[in-house]
Amino acid sequence: MNLITNSELSNHPTFVSNNNINHKTFKTMITTANIKNGVNVDQLVETIGAVQSNPELAKFEFRAKNKWIDGGHAVSHIKDFYGVGAEDESRQETFEMECSHPNVLLGQNEAATPPEVLLHALGSCLTGAMVYHAAANGIEIESASSTLKGGCDLHGFLGLDPAVRMGFDGIKFTLKVKSDASAEQLEQLAKFSPVFDMVTNPTPVTIEIIKE
Amino acid sequence: MNLITNSELSNHPTFVSNNNINHKTFKTMITTANIKNGVNVDQLVETIGAVQSNPELAKFEFRAKNKWIDGGHAVSHIKDFYGVGAEDESRQETFEMECSHPNVLLGQNEAATPPEVLLHALGSCLTGAMVYHAAANGIEIESASSTLKGGCDLHGFLGLDPAVRMGFDGIKFTLKVKSDASAEQLEQLAKFSPVFDMVTNPTPVTIEIIKE
Repeated sequence: MNLITNSELSNHPTFVSNNNINHKTFKTMITTANIKNGVNVDQLVETIGAVQSNPELAKFEFRAKNKWIDGGHAVSHIKDFYGVGAEDESRQETFEMECSHPNVLLGQNEAATPPEVLLHALGSCLTGAMVYHAAANGIEIESASSTLKGGCDLHGFLGLDPAVRMGFDGIKFTLKVKSDASAEQLEQLAKFSPVFDMVTNPTPVTIEIIKE
Repeated sequence: MNLITNSELSNHPTFVSNNNINHKTFKTMITTANIKNGVNVDQLVETIGAVQSNPELAKFEFRAKNKWIDGGHAVSHIKDFYGVGAEDESRQETFEMECSHPNVLLGQNEAATPPEVLLHALGSCLTGAMVYHAAANGIEIESASSTLKGGCDLHGFLGLDPAVRMGFDGIKFTLKVKSDASAEQLEQLAKFSPVFDMVTNPTPVTIEIIKE
């Protein structure tokens, strides 16, 4: 699949929609690592080329292990994943993270609540997607910081009113960014975020419960 | 709204669907804290009563601040929130958490990726929801641990194929639990999870980008 000449994709935003990034000129003109926004654009272009040559390389599986401590307090461990045709061997560290609840939600404030952790994942993902796609399009991002707010009504979680949802009724993401690109263009780039996709669109979750 | 006598809600699962928990007998029979599954059931019943008396107390707003470091590396800080009619003052600690990416996704493995962090939030939330609702229904949970797996295809994130979504095409949650309750009942309790709701159903995200 050739992004630049495939007319079917001409109106679809792509990682390499800017002609400034051309595999051939790129490889011959650049001799040192080409870093933009902290992204190694050489490696990015190679990744795109590899995926285009062998679509199987694009398949990833991410995983987490979670263990209940007590009440609304739990800990996750994250390390291994599958991608680029193999189990990852690059990670030395297992990432440990907790969730808990504040006093008014019957916890002891050991960690942030799961919905707050979702806000963290969403903000990081929207920003990262913008930064990667900006790098691929030759757009510089000087700085970026954001706030996220999500409102909910406990009548949902408590089961007191079936008309009220359990989760946030909406999330507001406000991003302050220094860049020459327009706000509209940056928003389009941010929307490549996988977590944004998973929050705004339904993602099926299969539950299997095994009694021990 | 009275849960036990309101016929409109009779087929809707609720936090206090088990007659074992009755405000009046509860208050007179129990003199020490009634802890089940690490959940203070006295406080839980009081919370439900307070929300029923004053629905405004059920409104919460959770928040996160996110700051881009470079590439796909970002850090969030989470502390303040609004709930039970006031800004929270119980949290002494600001929770700091990062997201980053592994080498094959152009990062340096400083932290888990945003989709992995979403798995952590989802697993913690499904488990916590099950535990809280089990406590309210007099069901003991002895232990609970889970694995979460999410698969995706980079053709979506890279913008190479508009038919492929950016996020996980599905998530598998496998929970091992020790409890006398049936797997079916535990699954119903877990589905009160706010993050499960937000992942499986669309949650609107408003994006505002402010150029600095």
